[in-house]
Amino acid sequence: MKDSVFMEEMDAFSYRDKLAKGAVAFVPVGALEQHGSHMAMCVDAALTRDMAGATAEAVDAAGLGPAVVTAPINFGYRSQQRSGGGFHLSGTTSLSGSTIISLAKDICYNLIEDGVRKIVIMNGHYENYQFVFEGAQLALEQAHARGLGGAKIQLLSYWDFVDDDTIAALYPDGFTGWDLEHAGVMETSLMLLFHPDLVDMDRIDEDLYVGLPATMPNYDVLPIVADYTPPSGCLSHPGASTREKGIVLRDAAVAGMLGAIEREFGGLGDFHEN
Amino acid sequence: MKDSVFMEEMDAFSYRDKLAKGAVAFVPVGALEQHGSHMAMCVDAALTRDMAGATAEAVDAAGLGPAVVTAPINFGYRSQQRSGGGFHLSGTTSLSGSTIISLAKDICYNLIEDGVRKIVIMNGHYENYQFVFEGAQLALEQAHARGLGGAKIQLLSYWDFVDDDTIAALYPDGFTGWDLEHAGVMETSLMLLFHPDLVDMDRIDEDLYVGLPATMPNYDVLPIVADYTPPSGCLSHPGASTREKGIVLRDAAVAGMLGAIEREFGGLGDFHEN
Amino acid sequence: MKDSVFMEEMDAFSYRDKLAKGAVAFVPVGALEQHGSHMAMCVDAALTRDMAGATAEAVDAAGLGPAVVTAPINFGYRSQQRSGGGFHLSGTTSLSGSTIISLAKDICYNLIEDGVRKIVIMNGHYENYQFVFEGAQLALEQAHARGLGGAKIQLLSYWDFVDDDTIAALYPDGFTGWDLEHAGVMETSLMLLFHPDLVDMDRIDEDLYVGLPATMPNYDVLPIVADYTPPSGCLSHPGASTREKGIVLRDAAVAGMLGAIEREFGGLGDFHEN
Amino acid sequence: MKDSVFMEEMDAFSYRDKLAKGAVAFVPVGALEQHGSHMAMCVDAALTRDMAGATAEAVDAAGLGPAVVTAPINFGYRSQQRSGGGFHLSGTTSLSGSTIISLAKDICYNLIEDGVRKIVIMNGHYENYQFVFEGAQLALEQAHARGLGGAKIQLLSYWDFVDDDTIAALYPDGFTGWDLEHAGVMETSLMLLFHPDLVDMDRIDEDLYVGLPATMPNYDVLPIVADYTPPSGCLSHPGASTREKGIVLRDAAVAGMLGAIEREFGGLGDFHEN
Amino acid sequence: MKDSVFMEEMDAFSYRDKLAKGAVAFVPVGALEQHGSHMAMCVDAALTRDMAGATAEAVDAAGLGPAVVTAPINFGYRSQQRSGGGFHLSGTTSLSGSTIISLAKDICYNLIEDGVRKIVIMNGHYENYQFVFEGAQLALEQAHARGLGGAKIQLLSYWDFVDDDTIAALYPDGFTGWDLEHAGVMETSLMLLFHPDLVDMDRIDEDLYVGLPATMPNYDVLPIVADYTPPSGCLSHPGASTREKGIVLRDAAVAGMLGAIEREFGGLGDFHEN
Amino acid sequence: MKDSVFMEEMDAFSYRDKLAKGAVAFVPVGALEQHGSHMAMCVDAALTRDMAGATAEAVDAAGLGPAVVTAPINFGYRSQQRSGGGFHLSGTTSLSGSTIISLAKDICYNLIEDGVRKIVIMNGHYENYQFVFEGAQLALEQAHARGLGGAKIQLLSYWDFVDDDTIAALYPDGFTGWDLEHAGVMETSLMLLFHPDLVDMDRIDEDLYVGLPATMPNYDVLPIVADYTPPSGCLSHPGASTREKGIVLRDAAVAGMLGAIEREFGGLGDFHEN
Repeated sequence: MKDSVFMEEMDAFSYRDKLAKGAVAFVPVGALEQHGSHMAMCVDAALTRDMAGATAEAVDAAGLGPAVVTAPINFGYRSQQRSGGGFHLSGTTSLSGSTIISLAKDICYNLIEDGVRKIVIMNGHYENYQFVFEGAQLALEQAHARGLGGAKIQLLSYWDFVDDDTIAALYPDGFTGWDLEHAGVMETSLMLLFHPDLVDMDRIDEDLYVGLPATMPNYDVLPIVADYTPPSGCLSHPGASTREKGIVLRDAAVAGMLGAIEREFGGLGDFHEN
Repeated sequence: MKDSVFMEEMDAFSYRDKLAKGAVAFVPVGALEQHGSHMAMCVDAALTRDMAGATAEAVDAAGLGPAVVTAPINFGYRSQQRSGGGFHLSGTTSLSGSTIISLAKDICYNLIEDGVRKIVIMNGHYENYQFVFEGAQLALEQAHARGLGGAKIQLLSYWDFVDDDTIAALYPDGFTGWDLEHAGVMETSLMLLFHPDLVDMDRIDEDLYVGLPATMPNYDVLPIVADYTPPSGCLSHPGASTREKGIVLRDAAVAGMLGAIEREFGGLGDFHEN
Repeated sequence: MKDSVFMEEMDAFSYRDKLAKGAVAFVPVGALEQHGSHMAMCVDAALTRDMAGATAEAVDAAGLGPAVVTAPINFGYRSQQRSGGGFHLSGTTSLSGSTIISLAKDICYNLIEDGVRKIVIMNGHYENYQFVFEGAQLALEQAHARGLGGAKIQLLSYWDFVDDDTIAALYPDGFTGWDLEHAGVMETSLMLLFHPDLVDMDRIDEDLYVGLPATMPNYDVLPIVADYTPPSGCLSHPGASTREKGIVLRDAAVAGMLGAIEREFGGLGDFHEN
Repeated sequence: MKDSVFMEEMDAFSYRDKLAKGAVAFVPVGALEQHGSHMAMCVDAALTRDMAGATAEAVDAAGLGPAVVTAPINFGYRSQQRSGGGFHLSGTTSLSGSTIISLAKDICYNLIEDGVRKIVIMNGHYENYQFVFEGAQLALEQAHARGLGGAKIQLLSYWDFVDDDTIAALYPDGFTGWDLEHAGVMETSLMLLFHPDLVDMDRIDEDLYVGLPATMPNYDVLPIVADYTPPSGCLSHPGASTREKGIVLRDAAVAGMLGAIEREFGGLGDFHEN
Repeated sequence: MKDSVFMEEMDAFSYRDKLAKGAVAFVPVGALEQHGSHMAMCVDAALTRDMAGATAEAVDAAGLGPAVVTAPINFGYRSQQRSGGGFHLSGTTSLSGSTIISLAKDICYNLIEDGVRKIVIMNGHYENYQFVFEGAQLALEQAHARGLGGAKIQLLSYWDFVDDDTIAALYPDGFTGWDLEHAGVMETSLMLLFHPDLVDMDRIDEDLYVGLPATMPNYDVLPIVADYTPPSGCLSHPGASTREKGIVLRDAAVAGMLGAIEREFGGLGDFHEN
Repeated sequence: MKDSVFMEEMDAFSYRDKLAKGAVAFVPVGALEQHGSHMAMCVDAALTRDMAGATAEAVDAAGLGPAVVTAPINFGYRSQQRSGGGFHLSGTTSLSGSTIISLAKDICYNLIEDGVRKIVIMNGHYENYQFVFEGAQLALEQAHARGLGGAKIQLLSYWDFVDDDTIAALYPDGFTGWDLEHAGVMETSLMLLFHPDLVDMDRIDEDLYVGLPATMPNYDVLPIVADYTPPSGCLSHPGASTREKGIVLRDAAVAGMLGAIEREFGGLGDFHEN
């Protein structure tokens, strides 16, 4: 077994060594969701796992201690029309609110029980955020009740760490916001970087990829009005995506997240024997 | 993108094509759990995904229609001492009962809402079974309430389809039961087949791998009495594992599951437009 | 009893008359939350009730049929630091995620059972949105299961309907986003309009109202780091608030919401006898 | 801002001053429920808020320390036929049992977390009581688990403090019990006192107000048999209501509650810094 | 096997015969709760089962069709101080609110799924009522969602059917209400009738049985103030209990319940093939 | 009242005496479930209560301290086809997973709160086990959160303690496993011992008792395929049952359980004053 930051690729004894050195644990939270005809449905889970892996390596390289990445949460909250096209679209396989709350709670609590005190929940599906926040708070409450003090949880979405200059450079025609980036240039460029075999730019059928960027109402409506979602299911056009942009995006986001992690966990101590 | 049975590697439009032809959908349910020092912690999730993939291909090859595999449920129910060493062991990252029930329910229901009527839940973590059963039943109740009839869910654990002759051949010194196979010959051989990079037979440290097969009480006790679990966390000795045994195990199990799937879904019709 | 759009001020027989004519029902969702020393803690609940009342009257005046406003949900989801200062602040009395989901579900479902088919959930506390969305979806699922079809729920936050020109006019020094408007010019101006007795501009103590607009991290951290919240609990400075701005804000938002409601409910039929 | 016992009309800094002096916190629990054609639907929530306000002022005047009243819980448990006419009546907008339990739990727990140790839950909707009791107990269990000791919760229904002499004086023709007082003399007299604009005695249509006091079975039946409820939805006749009776009722109940509060909280200490 | 109304004493085939004839099903809901030193702790469960059995036989004898009694719910809601002495008393083994709701829901729903359409929930523990009511309503909602119409559930407490004349005769010194009858003359007399071996009048130790009938506050307080409960745990004195009074109580209650059941179920049809 | 190990037959003061001496508490978990035409439906609950009683007496006789048995949980998890014939069979009255989890949790927690530290959950319905395990763990977590340490819970199914020699002697034609023993020789022999009045060997109608032992698939399928269950609902033939075999089974199981209890609780101390 090669050395890895991923718990999925790590044996339990190696994991315990890292914990004993005060490891930061990343929890990637994704989704299984349609991303047009040019990308596979794993995007949110796969990219978040990738970004967590890259950030974990950066944390270790920066001397902030070892870092591990849990298995990703592969399913996300109901895709909403204004940020993911809508949960009515076939292929999008969603969780209800209470399920995602419970998942985040159980996983964070388990990590704390194992001795982890520095947790970074990395979100990669816009709709998850509030439910994961609630789960994190419930995990801390349970830990507190069990006498397990000192844990800290940071919640972030990786795209929030792409700085304005990078955005300006990558979106010369203007940026429409991260919510509309569903299956657009950011996600597609990162997939070209991390999973080129799961992208096929030739499957961008212009007859289908019309009405982009989507013009969405400033409200939600239920049941979903299917006509509001463009036929491709994408909310902005991925045509300008490149692997190089993927590198720029990754580097900007990882650098930003590294700074945030250092700010919150830089001064914390090491392993807690529960 | 290459053709794949995995939804994670499939775009939504290709997925919808398969659904329209009455696809069988497999849901792999695993765990993130310690498996000694010689294997990575993904075993239950990874092997179940692999076995579901192999069975899905067999279903398609047998003319039973297309088959798809959802993203795996990466986390499982609390590891119990008699079948997984216990949830007190660091690295084992478990879900509570209600969370795994909800997960299984949400995913099955979503598939039915998408038009799937033939679902196979493949379990790869002994402790999950009853909770996944409950989730499946709740999904059917919800589907029924929403007017979505005709769905059928088959629940199985892949090892239950390894026939007695194969067991006799693979375990010449006697077979101690699937529950004690945690991190033993079956799982290790299959990992050598599917993920040789995540096994390291040299890390079988005989000082650690003592007391195997484990002698477990015929009851559970909570809080867990740590002494009952052997120091390696394995419940039987993986030393006799080989890639060849992995092939035999896979082929026996896939053949058995194919027969069971044909029995239940052979006569069912095609796509349901909900 | 005077004629009123508020169910709290309406007898049941008058209410039933309105339902029989296909009334739109507004559900205001607020919070009980600190808003600095210059405003009472009812702001989110009171303003949302007020805005719902004003919009309900506009709906009726526009010939879209009668409109009613339920009693407000007086408590909101845990105040988050980046949009409400944080739930650690005394006075802020918050609900957990599952409670707010259940509240929204029960109320929407009850309205549908009463015969309402046009529901507008008006949100006035940033953090509530996702949980209320989930509740609305669950209400529709329950209604569907009970055979109550045809209901439609629109979810909106009133500030999202203040147009860019109005923003530019009201915030000549630049607008920092609705999330930072907590206890700032928008809310204070609207309180000066609707509840002048619950605002006291003289209580804006400049020693306390420092560090505004707040500079917040682009992530959340739990437990909350109290130092990140300015000492007043406000996230932007309310000093430039006036009753006149309140009128402009109200009129812009009501006009925008009226348009959105007409778009979604303009063509719908009347009362459903369940 | 004028001085007020209501948190809705109080800024957070003033609230914290009161907490620091060991304030008693009142939580009014009401309903949004039909009350015939002569009264608005806010009765249970409005009167409980009013009675809590009057009692809070009495507590302060009696030297028992400051008192505050939270925002009311505006919705109540499903109206039952024998005490509220039934939840099948349109306008009555009810919560399920688990929602009202959660609401009471969250609000009480939040108060305790803020430092409150003396809580009075004042009930104004007959059907709520058991669910609110459960919520209060769960809040104490959560507080205990979080290390927040010393809190005490008193639960009462305001009408239980109207003494027998007052009842005899107000109901010269005999008293049929508080359960049948739904929309009868007690509630109507109190509304004439506190909210004369939300009562209209001229809307007591004798053709509708027949069969009063209602003769109810000594059991419940589900689904509700609509015929058992009188056509007005009232369970006793409000005709003899007067503002003067409202004063007598308020004074008797407030005096009784003041005594009960003194008994339970008289000897308790002050603010707890959590 | 002798003929019996109790499902516990009936084989499944005999049960199905009764269902096919439109049987009324009784669900006894009790508690495991201290009842002083003179009675065993099964009182609430045992007596409710007994009364349900006697009523079931009366239903059959009256030509209302066959009747069956499910196994009793042996545990009840948290004993409250004013009706059961309080859940702090050792021996009293209580359920939380959500558990008793779920129990009542699951059992009623199962009966409906089996084909039962006439259900009588008989309560024998004062505190259960509201939670069982909620469970019954949820069961009907689930049945409705599953397309199982036509079921009716009657909820009653057996003591509510003891008429005023009987009360006057049995309590010549005045009756203090059913809530205070905990372990008093009613329950003790019925135990002397149905389970004389589980009563021991000689264990009424007058040093312990003081302060009866108990003088309880007209409110609840949590945590329970132990001093408010008399030392015996009884709320009224059982000294005047006799087997003869037990007969009178049983006969009065059964006659009353029979009338109520005839009123609600007299006209209903027979078996529903679901 | 005679001396008894059953809490149902014990007064609260006697119970408290036993607790003060460090009593072991048994919690029997059964079901209300069809058991063919030759036995009543109480089998799982009744036998588990009986076996718990016999084991409790053995514990006391062995000098391990007093022992008590709570009222049984009369209802069990949904009967599964491979171990109970299936929950589709009329008469089988089942609980959902979350209800049985909650029941086990509440009862165990209550015992701990009363001062019990040695709990044995005895299962008598195959399908219950995992849910009861989860409930036991949740009870310990709650106890820990409330500061109630030192409790230990042992979970067992009584048949797992029948040793191989006894099995060989009782099943001379081979043993098909405990799951298929539903309504077979073990349960019938024990019923002949404990409840001969609830068994009728003459009702073994050979036309109905065909296809035994049942040949079940090695998976579950939902909705249940009714044809897989033999017409009697039994999974093996009870014809060879005798009272004498019941004695042998009881004695073997009780001896085995006594040893297991001594192993886990032999060294524990006495009563905990919470």
